[in-house]
Amino acid sequence: MIIVLKPDAKKLDTDNLLKKIEDANLKPILLEGTHRSVIAVIGDERKMPAEFLEAQPGVEKTMPILAPYKIASRETKIDNTEIKIGENTLGGKKVGVIAGPCTVESEEQIVSVAKIVKASGAIALRGGAFKPRTNPYSFQGLQEEGLKYLATARKETGLPIVTEVLSEKSIDMVAKYTDVIQIGTRNMANFELLKAVGEVKKPVILKRGMAATLEEFLQAAEYILSQDNPNVILCERGIRTFETHTRFTLSLSIVPQLKELTHLPVIVDPSHGTGKRNLVNPMSKGAVAVGADGLLIEVHHDPEASFVDGPQTINEDDFKTLMLELKPIANAVNREA
Amino acid sequence: MIIVLKPDAKKLDTDNLLKKIEDANLKPILLEGTHRSVIAVIGDERKMPAEFLEAQPGVEKTMPILAPYKIASRETKIDNTEIKIGENTLGGKKVGVIAGPCTVESEEQIVSVAKIVKASGAIALRGGAFKPRTNPYSFQGLQEEGLKYLATARKETGLPIVTEVLSEKSIDMVAKYTDVIQIGTRNMANFELLKAVGEVKKPVILKRGMAATLEEFLQAAEYILSQDNPNVILCERGIRTFETHTRFTLSLSIVPQLKELTHLPVIVDPSHGTGKRNLVNPMSKGAVAVGADGLLIEVHHDPEASFVDGPQTINEDDFKTLMLELKPIANAVNREA
Amino acid sequence: MIIVLKPDAKKLDTDNLLKKIEDANLKPILLEGTHRSVIAVIGDERKMPAEFLEAQPGVEKTMPILAPYKIASRETKIDNTEIKIGENTLGGKKVGVIAGPCTVESEEQIVSVAKIVKASGAIALRGGAFKPRTNPYSFQGLQEEGLKYLATARKETGLPIVTEVLSEKSIDMVAKYTDVIQIGTRNMANFELLKAVGEVKKPVILKRGMAATLEEFLQAAEYILSQDNPNVILCERGIRTFETHTRFTLSLSIVPQLKELTHLPVIVDPSHGTGKRNLVNPMSKGAVAVGADGLLIEVHHDPEASFVDGPQTINEDDFKTLMLELKPIANAVNREA
Amino acid sequence: MIIVLKPDAKKLDTDNLLKKIEDANLKPILLEGTHRSVIAVIGDERKMPAEFLEAQPGVEKTMPILAPYKIASRETKIDNTEIKIGENTLGGKKVGVIAGPCTVESEEQIVSVAKIVKASGAIALRGGAFKPRTNPYSFQGLQEEGLKYLATARKETGLPIVTEVLSEKSIDMVAKYTDVIQIGTRNMANFELLKAVGEVKKPVILKRGMAATLEEFLQAAEYILSQDNPNVILCERGIRTFETHTRFTLSLSIVPQLKELTHLPVIVDPSHGTGKRNLVNPMSKGAVAVGADGLLIEVHHDPEASFVDGPQTINEDDFKTLMLELKPIANAVNREA
Repeated sequence: MIIVLKPDAKKLDTDNLLKKIEDANLKPILLEGTHRSVIAVIGDERKMPAEFLEAQPGVEKTMPILAPYKIASRETKIDNTEIKIGENTLGGKKVGVIAGPCTVESEEQIVSVAKIVKASGAIALRGGAFKPRTNPYSFQGLQEEGLKYLATARKETGLPIVTEVLSEKSIDMVAKYTDVIQIGTRNMANFELLKAVGEVKKPVILKRGMAATLEEFLQAAEYILSQDNPNVILCERGIRTFETHTRFTLSLSIVPQLKELTHLPVIVDPSHGTGKRNLVNPMSKGAVAVGADGLLIEVHHDPEASFVDGPQTINEDDFKTLMLELKPIANAVNREA
Repeated sequence: MIIVLKPDAKKLDTDNLLKKIEDANLKPILLEGTHRSVIAVIGDERKMPAEFLEAQPGVEKTMPILAPYKIASRETKIDNTEIKIGENTLGGKKVGVIAGPCTVESEEQIVSVAKIVKASGAIALRGGAFKPRTNPYSFQGLQEEGLKYLATARKETGLPIVTEVLSEKSIDMVAKYTDVIQIGTRNMANFELLKAVGEVKKPVILKRGMAATLEEFLQAAEYILSQDNPNVILCERGIRTFETHTRFTLSLSIVPQLKELTHLPVIVDPSHGTGKRNLVNPMSKGAVAVGADGLLIEVHHDPEASFVDGPQTINEDDFKTLMLELKPIANAVNREA
Repeated sequence: MIIVLKPDAKKLDTDNLLKKIEDANLKPILLEGTHRSVIAVIGDERKMPAEFLEAQPGVEKTMPILAPYKIASRETKIDNTEIKIGENTLGGKKVGVIAGPCTVESEEQIVSVAKIVKASGAIALRGGAFKPRTNPYSFQGLQEEGLKYLATARKETGLPIVTEVLSEKSIDMVAKYTDVIQIGTRNMANFELLKAVGEVKKPVILKRGMAATLEEFLQAAEYILSQDNPNVILCERGIRTFETHTRFTLSLSIVPQLKELTHLPVIVDPSHGTGKRNLVNPMSKGAVAVGADGLLIEVHHDPEASFVDGPQTINEDDFKTLMLELKPIANAVNREA
Repeated sequence: MIIVLKPDAKKLDTDNLLKKIEDANLKPILLEGTHRSVIAVIGDERKMPAEFLEAQPGVEKTMPILAPYKIASRETKIDNTEIKIGENTLGGKKVGVIAGPCTVESEEQIVSVAKIVKASGAIALRGGAFKPRTNPYSFQGLQEEGLKYLATARKETGLPIVTEVLSEKSIDMVAKYTDVIQIGTRNMANFELLKAVGEVKKPVILKRGMAATLEEFLQAAEYILSQDNPNVILCERGIRTFETHTRFTLSLSIVPQLKELTHLPVIVDPSHGTGKRNLVNPMSKGAVAVGADGLLIEVHHDPEASFVDGPQTINEDDFKTLMLELKPIANAVNREA
């Protein structure tokens, strides 16, 4: 930690500050500069919060040196974490595609989509039984009935299933049916929910909050990891910016940056990240090219009849084409698809 | 709803679309233009989601005409909603200031701060017992113990108390102690929590999500309102932008805009909205000048010793000064402070 | 400057770096920490660009301690700079309002608006003769003819005039007619234009770039100041964010922050900053309450007939009301309006 | 154009509005809805600016149907525009890479880098002679001397040269030396400069403004195109968002979206778009995978000694590797590299 003092900091305040740092078992070094003095704090600065230091008299600002997460860091674990999803893994050589409809609408629909995505090589089936809807009057999902249909689809196809949990109250129910738990963008900073899924021990797909920085994203992962659940998959799904030609701005550069900083698998959701069907194919290729370990894609056997998110959902033919076209891209970056 | 057709939309697709609109008991009017044709949909467009229409073949985009919220709208209720907080109200002539520490640290601390803010004219005491912390290793609040200290502070001063709820699981506990429930920015789109507080019927301070548009903010309020809890207070607390000189960008222009569109009270949190102690005084004045019905301010009897959010917390003297200086601003806009 | 080394930085690279810093006549101090080593650089770090240091092997990142501007800084000049505009000043006790139409349309129009704004107490007349239009097919301004009409309006009313310059080529022409030169938001980082207006020595209103940070804004001012033109007036006019209910997000918190960091006057443009007529009155009050030294407001004698920016332009009656209502706000913050 | 009327719009105002639309030779159709009435305007709405309509009494908002650009639109020209750069083209089958140092530092440096990038297959050499620097005290470029060194490098290698123009005043000088003119992000909305380069008729690389929407970007292109210069190359180079792990957020999804809407070539600058050397390789691959027609990459023979932008500049070996690794990606999307 570097503490920058105000130009007019009083000696008494500086002395008090040095003492407080020592009291926390850290070593302060005062550097008197020509224009500003600074204090360098030697030791694990995570013991002394920046917000505490910034509230002290004479302090202008603080600058942390260490990352605010530990278990998620590649400094803690050098090798990639591979997470088992059914017979495949995410985080290894294979680029895994998880696909399915935004929302489970009926048994027939979800089984039919499951067969489609399985046939083209998806490693898991996604489908929402509990839906976080911005508008309170929109369809909120089939709930437990939807979970049962997902289980049927798994039985029929062998595909592991991925579904979102919205509430601590329904975690046990969701965990009973699903293979992978998804935390949506609106809940990335719902820390109570993160702790609760951390206790379940099933793999978790953690979607980046639409306004979350890289550090906040990794700290949210740390919430789950620190409950002794090491199976966290990070998912970039678009951030909120001034752009309006897409629903969100898919920030692909976070993928290679995360791969440097963390050992956790990183996947990309080009469907929600753009909100546009025509962009799913190119942005999927882009995601694999920048190093994503997997993709999360909305597929429906009849997108024009889908209850939710139709504009960004692709159909069977488009999905088949995409899966074929991803192979040479994956090969070009020494991966398989 | 206006539906813009693609330049090459097929007649068959257009005819199918017109039929689907009629089937939803809405009246479509096809307008054939020189460059594009559009369909105007007459009737309550909220019956037919834009996402459904945009998934239809031949559709380029849709443009909603009506606001996506109803109960919150001033078209539904013309007069300001005044919400009772102890002996005062928010939404009436008086600009109400709610103040207190970010976090309840001890009985002594919260009682001492309560006396300070009461003496300067605050209408309620805020204090966090459950804290949403970005970093999993940060202090997470005193929980029920903190709620009990808040209750003691109310007993000693008569001030109603405001505290945040983070989880459906602790709603009953929080509701037992508090007068006003606060939903934080990270939970604005935690729709299950919104429904749950809607059922409690106590006044709710709903903080704007740091990436929420005005429409999303009012739809979140609608979640609570639609559970028959009419006591929603909207709170602007800063949005996430590219600016770095403040922690968030306090968007004061949403205040007069909300006051036009909704009958609900609107308050402003200049402490979290800026993250800087030196900006709390001027931004509080700005908030009252643009028409805010109240303020939410972090005050501590010893900010330099506070566990959390010290940099943005003001002390007793600064709070006293602020409360005095707010009076002429409030008078200047025909309010009282 | 603090230089953070990579955890695996080689001794040779570190030694080379220490030498390069010494060669630049700065004093490096190596601090070996438990998790990271850092180098503190003592001396005027502005001599050694961060981008140079970050390109060196073994360097993870750099953290500047000093602000990247000098003449604009309050550390260089403690007292407020007051800039003379006709018989008034900006930056002193009086809150100065500059008003007029977005665009000069005709002699009759500009003279008529000039009389209106003068009557209500504006200290200067604004009007665009050269217009920066996003759409190449939009009306681009009357150019020199417009400047002549502005001069006529000055002659008839005595009001100094403010107009925008778009190009180095027309600076001489604009400077011949105008009292104050305006640099628009799209040209804040047009550094050649900044240097050129720096040479003119007339007061300059520098509008904040819609994506400029506070530091970039002050560095743009520094371009003008460093040409020996000390008469720079900073103008917040809204930044680009994800918000869509206003055209831009007027960031009022930059006003008190700038007033701390710089001695230059700071004004606010609530017309362009919101793009909405109904928000001009409240946001003007907010601007004065947070400490703005002045306002820039679009006024037209017949907004519904105005060529450009009609939606945000207020009429004579609204302007008169606003000017009256600003007085008690200004008084409340120890200013005059 | 769709005009939405206020719920309380007066009949007289509506009638006046209908008449004004007819007077502009457009056909208005009034649609009286249950909650709101709207007017659909048939004809080329670009004749009647939205801002004019929104200033009329009784109007709540307007919604344009047509894109605000014409020559740039794929509706105007269906086939891709291929632009000749030396012996190659941009916009055809080959993905063209333009590479070189941020800044021309000396004859030796630019010739040496030219040889490096030529050897690995670059189609043109970039190098800045005039530099737009945020800080007025930073190195501003060698100017005409730099242009001469670039010409020498062309003579030695045969590579066409690309350099930025900052000012109308230096256009003639720059055009005399360069093959392709670059307009930087800070000048995308410097409309006078756009008009001036439009008159030169040499190919122009137009970088997206860091806060420009897709529509504004295409309108800036339209400024150049409308001066009868059809040779505009669009360049995505990162937008300003809340993200801090990269200098800007490279928005790759604009590439396939632009390719749908316009016939102009689209290239990507991963160096400025990320500001980080380690991200140049993966983001270059991502750009080609999403359909970019080319890349603009910073290469230096000795990045650690470069005057400017060292942190994002790659060296000879990294560039050679990148060029080899791009080939299979290009092939995977039916292109050549």
